[in-house]
Amino acid sequence: MLQPLNKQEQAKLVQFVSERSQEISADILIKAQEIIDQVKEQKDDALFALTKRFDQVDLSSLKVSEEELDEAIAQCDPAFKKAMEMAKENIEFYHKAQKQNSFLLEKEEKIYLGQRVLPLDSVGIYVPGGRAQYPSSVLMNTIPAKVAGVKRIVMTTPPNAEGKIHPNIAFAAKLAGVDEIYKLGGAQAIAALAYGTQSILPVDKIVGPGNIFVAAAKKLVFGKVDIDMIAGPSEILVIADGKADPKFVAADLLSQAEHDPMACSILITTSPKLVDQVNQELEKQSAVLPKREIVEQSLANHGHSIVCDSLEECISLSNLIAPEHLELMVESPMEYLGQVKHAGSVFLGYYTCESVGDYFGGTNHVLPTSGTARFSSALGVDSFIKKSSYLHYSKEALQKYGEQIVKMAQEEQLDAHAQAILVRMDT
Amino acid sequence: MLQPLNKQEQAKLVQFVSERSQEISADILIKAQEIIDQVKEQKDDALFALTKRFDQVDLSSLKVSEEELDEAIAQCDPAFKKAMEMAKENIEFYHKAQKQNSFLLEKEEKIYLGQRVLPLDSVGIYVPGGRAQYPSSVLMNTIPAKVAGVKRIVMTTPPNAEGKIHPNIAFAAKLAGVDEIYKLGGAQAIAALAYGTQSILPVDKIVGPGNIFVAAAKKLVFGKVDIDMIAGPSEILVIADGKADPKFVAADLLSQAEHDPMACSILITTSPKLVDQVNQELEKQSAVLPKREIVEQSLANHGHSIVCDSLEECISLSNLIAPEHLELMVESPMEYLGQVKHAGSVFLGYYTCESVGDYFGGTNHVLPTSGTARFSSALGVDSFIKKSSYLHYSKEALQKYGEQIVKMAQEEQLDAHAQAILVRMDT
Repeated sequence: MLQPLNKQEQAKLVQFVSERSQEISADILIKAQEIIDQVKEQKDDALFALTKRFDQVDLSSLKVSEEELDEAIAQCDPAFKKAMEMAKENIEFYHKAQKQNSFLLEKEEKIYLGQRVLPLDSVGIYVPGGRAQYPSSVLMNTIPAKVAGVKRIVMTTPPNAEGKIHPNIAFAAKLAGVDEIYKLGGAQAIAALAYGTQSILPVDKIVGPGNIFVAAAKKLVFGKVDIDMIAGPSEILVIADGKADPKFVAADLLSQAEHDPMACSILITTSPKLVDQVNQELEKQSAVLPKREIVEQSLANHGHSIVCDSLEECISLSNLIAPEHLELMVESPMEYLGQVKHAGSVFLGYYTCESVGDYFGGTNHVLPTSGTARFSSALGVDSFIKKSSYLHYSKEALQKYGEQIVKMAQEEQLDAHAQAILVRMDT
Repeated sequence: MLQPLNKQEQAKLVQFVSERSQEISADILIKAQEIIDQVKEQKDDALFALTKRFDQVDLSSLKVSEEELDEAIAQCDPAFKKAMEMAKENIEFYHKAQKQNSFLLEKEEKIYLGQRVLPLDSVGIYVPGGRAQYPSSVLMNTIPAKVAGVKRIVMTTPPNAEGKIHPNIAFAAKLAGVDEIYKLGGAQAIAALAYGTQSILPVDKIVGPGNIFVAAAKKLVFGKVDIDMIAGPSEILVIADGKADPKFVAADLLSQAEHDPMACSILITTSPKLVDQVNQELEKQSAVLPKREIVEQSLANHGHSIVCDSLEECISLSNLIAPEHLELMVESPMEYLGQVKHAGSVFLGYYTCESVGDYFGGTNHVLPTSGTARFSSALGVDSFIKKSSYLHYSKEALQKYGEQIVKMAQEEQLDAHAQAILVRMDT
């Protein structure tokens, strides 16, 4: 059952969501740093030794060969492969629209300036192993990099007990266009991507989720390379009007709750009756779920319902929370989108459940958590480019405006800056 | 004199530049955290006490009134004001071209999706005080936020010995359109911007340079709010052909060197003769500079010259370094721009010295240092927006593609995700 919240408690919820970013203890940071140091010193030798220690497999080569890749892919369910191919097309369609162009401005004759949009040279994508495997994440992390124009996309993922790559991950990697795949997990994978070894050349940016050691290692190598955000626990906020189907609302809250006992599922509605109906549905639907235990823990701790007087008020409250996922289960949802100021991704109407976006619709599922949607964005093409500006002044242009530049430099007591203009004005 | 480097030493230089990001000692982090905690607990009381302690002034109000602002501005040199107004127009002209539009895609009937570009609600700009004052930085930090559409732009800057704001900083703030100005510096200013006090409401992002305590505090509040990059020492790389005027080259290297004994000035050229001439000019020009001591230290430690066989080779080497500032002092510089893969900002031709861009040309002077131009960009409109995606599937669309989404969810063993689709397909 969702815990109903009154006005005072709402403020606490806002604070709770924004403060629950993933803390990493000093203990874990130290262990991750030790692994990084070991990889920096012993390179491939360290990678083989650490893989033996953590994954209990003795590999002769880290790189997944074309043959091994094809063998793995042969085991995939054709229906899954077809679905992935359709999803890939949708994800590509959306991300292509994110591409930005370089520009050139001509301010006046012989003064021109602009901005170039350039892809990163190389990117590393970490894909977790273990029992859970998320081929959809491979698409979501790789396709934007590909669309951005990154030439070298490297994936690392821990080997399974037989020293193999998971078939679905193999298929996703090939489909998305990953260039190199290594069987390597944990902090050692992050270290190898950041610093390079004999087998693995370093990359410029590392993205993708992982366990707490992976997150710690990413934090530690940041600066040497760029990283994506280190995601906190996930949250969904459903805004529903009185016409929303309680079955749908409950199913969507459960889809969030099954991720993690820390996941947060919030219903904000104008209808007190809907809250009761949703609570009944939650009980009914959760009873048959394989992950029932996680779901119940998650809802008990972080499932909340709030009743507001109007949809405008619902959205104002949502703006304070800045949720990762926001469902607008209302009639004419586009009429309300403009009021949404802070949300990672918005799902419009009764039939667009979060799952559509998680897998298939085309928008990215790597989203800002813990209220960071206030100031940050989903993973996308922007995550894999950088911008470089350029400026040209001719001799005439410099002589025309030199006086102003010299004055500004002198006021800041940067005489050599002024001098660089003056030597050119003298000619 | 620039230290000539051979091939082996070049690799060391690349490593040196990329590894010299600003390290902050644990000692300083602890002191900054203490100040942050004090501000969180005692709010305004802490701000007044800390200002008395660090700035030796006893303020009755932190906020700069309209009256005080106008009084300060009245003291500015009219020629400086005129130059700043012209610079502002150029900076606005360039940054307006950076604005991105929201988009809407119609994939098929009743399936639509897109991305909204939204400004941050509020931004804090830190402006250092002390003897040095950089009104140009106020323009460079504020104008992109203004162009992005940020509604509330707050500036903090330490008061001078009389408890006043520096006239030039006051003018720059008013010109750029800052909404609120507070006389407050150090880690306490960062804490106030991140957590808020009675006088200062919190902001979503903090930008602007500062001393080591400011940098430490920014690192510590990151996550609660967003921050810009913490800049390392600055660098310039000049690529010059045989026709470049040694006087110009030397002046530009000196303009970098005067910033800081840690600043790095590198000349890469196809002409050994130019190196000799530049060295002579450096001696001559530095002799008359007020900051001669800093310049000489900087050049002795971090001034380098490298001779290559071709301009292509010069640019390849520059790409390895990924300099903050790159001057292409060559004939037909636009012919070479395409080869530049990694550089914060590029200055084209013999007459576009870095000073033009530092103050006036319109491109931003807040640039990625320490080789991070490999993966990051100048401050700009992008720094003050976030993107929020949206997705709509109708009932028909969901029923058409539900099977694929269910399959993908099931392969990932996320049954509640599948269930959210299935309950809708049943209707």
